[in-house]
Amino acid sequence: MRSIYLDNSATTAPCEQAVAAVLNSLTNTYANPSSLYSIGVEANRMMEQSRENIAKFLGCSAEEIFFTSGGTEANNIALQGAFYAGYRNGNKVVTTATEHPSVLNTLKELCRKHSAELVEITPDATGAVSKEKIFEAIDDKTFLVSIMLVNNEVGAINPVAQARTAIARKNSPALLHSDCVQAFGKLKFSPKTLGVDLLTVSGHKVHGPKGVGALYVKKGVRLSPTVFGGGQEKGIRPGTQATAFIDGFSAAVSALRDENTDVERICELRDYAVEKLSALDDVFINSSPDALPYILNISVLGYRSEVMLRFLSGRGVFVSSGSACSKGKRSYVLTSMGVSPARIDSALRISFSRYSQKSDIDALVEGIAQGQANLLKSK
Amino acid sequence: MRSIYLDNSATTAPCEQAVAAVLNSLTNTYANPSSLYSIGVEANRMMEQSRENIAKFLGCSAEEIFFTSGGTEANNIALQGAFYAGYRNGNKVVTTATEHPSVLNTLKELCRKHSAELVEITPDATGAVSKEKIFEAIDDKTFLVSIMLVNNEVGAINPVAQARTAIARKNSPALLHSDCVQAFGKLKFSPKTLGVDLLTVSGHKVHGPKGVGALYVKKGVRLSPTVFGGGQEKGIRPGTQATAFIDGFSAAVSALRDENTDVERICELRDYAVEKLSALDDVFINSSPDALPYILNISVLGYRSEVMLRFLSGRGVFVSSGSACSKGKRSYVLTSMGVSPARIDSALRISFSRYSQKSDIDALVEGIAQGQANLLKSK
Repeated sequence: MRSIYLDNSATTAPCEQAVAAVLNSLTNTYANPSSLYSIGVEANRMMEQSRENIAKFLGCSAEEIFFTSGGTEANNIALQGAFYAGYRNGNKVVTTATEHPSVLNTLKELCRKHSAELVEITPDATGAVSKEKIFEAIDDKTFLVSIMLVNNEVGAINPVAQARTAIARKNSPALLHSDCVQAFGKLKFSPKTLGVDLLTVSGHKVHGPKGVGALYVKKGVRLSPTVFGGGQEKGIRPGTQATAFIDGFSAAVSALRDENTDVERICELRDYAVEKLSALDDVFINSSPDALPYILNISVLGYRSEVMLRFLSGRGVFVSSGSACSKGKRSYVLTSMGVSPARIDSALRISFSRYSQKSDIDALVEGIAQGQANLLKSK
Repeated sequence: MRSIYLDNSATTAPCEQAVAAVLNSLTNTYANPSSLYSIGVEANRMMEQSRENIAKFLGCSAEEIFFTSGGTEANNIALQGAFYAGYRNGNKVVTTATEHPSVLNTLKELCRKHSAELVEITPDATGAVSKEKIFEAIDDKTFLVSIMLVNNEVGAINPVAQARTAIARKNSPALLHSDCVQAFGKLKFSPKTLGVDLLTVSGHKVHGPKGVGALYVKKGVRLSPTVFGGGQEKGIRPGTQATAFIDGFSAAVSALRDENTDVERICELRDYAVEKLSALDDVFINSSPDALPYILNISVLGYRSEVMLRFLSGRGVFVSSGSACSKGKRSYVLTSMGVSPARIDSALRISFSRYSQKSDIDALVEGIAQGQANLLKSK
C-alpha cells in the first residue's frame, strides 16, 4: 500500500540531503564543538557554517541565530527570557488566541505567576487577527508581544509587521516575538520585514530532523537566561549542541533554497483539493482562500475527526485532526474562529509538502467518500 | 595520521548501532509520535521501546524515564522543577563544589533569586565529598540535594546514597538528584541503589548522538513544570520528541549491555597510563586511584594545558584541558580539591572509552614527552 502523507504540518519526511548530513556528522565530525583540538575545531566550523547558512536563508546575521532542540524550546527561551527581561517595564502581554501551545501556555503561566495581564487577540473567521485589533491591543504598558506568522491548524497568515508599527506608535517598550515554525521555507519573510526582535523556526517542518530548531535574537536584544549550564550558544541555550541535527537542519534549508517556485504549485494543489472536496456532500472548508496553501483545514460533517482519520489511515492516507500537539482536545483555534462545534468535532487538517502530488489528493478524496459511505454517522 | 581520541568524557564517537538506528528512524519512521494514524503509532511504539530499553538498563520503569535534549536540559528541568516544587518547605539547598555547570549555575541562580542558602560541599584531595560532610550539610530545612555520582574532570566517585540516609535521619523534606552523566554505562548503579528521586543521563557520553538525554523521575515525585507547550513527555518536557536520536540513544545503550566486562580492561589501561606517565619528569596524577578508571586527570608541570593540548592535537592525539564545557577558565573542580595553581594551569584530562587501546597511551606518552622536549616551558 502506497502511503499518502498529508500531515506535513505535524512533521515532514527528512530529505536525502538532511539524512546524508546527519550521517556525515555522526560518523566523521563527532567531536564536541567546544573542544580545542583540531577535530573539535572542525566540528565547530561545520556548525558555524550551518548557522551561517540558516541565517542567510532567514535574512539575518549568523550571530543572531541560536540553536535549540526545536520550536518549543525556542519559544520558551524567547518568551520566558523576554518576559523576565522586560516585566518591570509594563504589566501587559499581547498575543493571539490561536498560538501554538508552546507560546500560549508559556505566556499564560508567566502572566499568572507575575500577575501581568494577558491579552489574547481573537481572530476573525479566516483565523487571522486583524491589523486593527493588533493596534488596539498594544499600549504603552505592553512589554511583550508574540504573534505567530502562520497558524498551524488553518494556515491563516497574521499581519505581524503591524505589531511593530503599533509598538512604535504607542511608545510601547515591548519586544516582539513571532513563532514562524509553519511559515519557514513556505512564505517569503525575514526578521527585518516582520520587524521582530525574536523569531522561532524548527527543523522538522522543513524536511530536517526532529530535535533541532533555531531562535533568532536581534542583535542588541537581551534575554534573561532561563536555562543554565556551560556557555554554549552564548549562554542563551547551554548544553552540548546537537551537531548532527544542526548540520541536517542546514542541509534541509539548503534543499529548500531550490524550491522557491514550489509555492505556486502548492497553491494549485490546494485549489484542486478544495474543488474536489467541495464536490463531496457535507464537506466544509475551514481555511481561508488567503491562507498559506500548505495547510487546508476541512470538516466532514457527521464524522468525528478521529474516526475519519483512522479510517483514512487504514487506507494509507495520513491527515491530522487538528495539530499533533494537542490530540484529544477540541481545537481552540477553530473555536476562536467561531466555527460551529459540529464542524470542529469533524475537522481534518490536510498539509502539503514539496513531495505532495495531485494523486495524493485523489486518494484523499476517494478515502473520505468511502468513509462517508462506510462509517456510521455520528449525531 | 591515525587519530587518538582520548576525550571521551567530552563526547564519544557514535557506535555503529546508534548510527544505524538514527538512519532507520530518519528514513523509515519519521512520523510525529503524537500522530494518531498508523505510522505515527509506529513511531511512538519505537520511541516507547527505546524508553523501555533505557529504563531496563537503568533499573527503573519506563514511565519514570523522560526524554530531553541532553544532560543540561535534564539537570535544569530536574533542579528548577524540584526547587519550585519544594522551596516553601525549607530554605537550604545542598550540592557539591564539583558539579557540572548545568547543576551548579542552575542552583546558584535559583538560590540567589529566591534567597535560599546554597551549601556547596568541598571535596577532599581525591575530588570526592565525604560521607561525613554530606551528613553534616543536610538538615531539616534542606529541600533539595544534588550530588553527582562521578565527577567529569577527575572521575571521583561520590557517596550519593549517603545523602538519602542523611535526608531520612535528619527529617529533611528534600528531593535528591544525581547527575549521572559520567557514570552511566561505566559504573554499576540504579536509582534504587543510590536512593535518588531524580537522575540525569546523556546519550552522547555512551556512543549515542549529541542532542538527547533522559531524566529519571521517581514514580510519585512531582516537579513544577518549567517548560510549557504540548503535552509531550507528560508535560515535563514538551516539544516533539527527537525520535531518531532517542532510537540512537537506545541502540547505544543496548551496545553497552555487552560491555560490562570492559571496566576491568579500562582499569588496566588507566594503570598502564599512570605507570608510563609517572615515569616522565614533572608529570603529576591528579585523579585518585579510587576514581572511575575512565577519567584520568594529570598535570604536566611547566606547560599550560592549552599549549600542550594543541601540541598533542598536531600529532593527532586528542585530550582535554578540563571539561569541554568551561574552556578558558581555571578549573573550579581542581581548585576545590586544593590542587596548586601551577598544576591546575597545566592539567590535562585523559578519558577512555571501550575503543581505547594500549597503543593510544603509548602515543599520548610519546606526545607529552615530545612536547616537553620541544615546547617552551612557561614560568
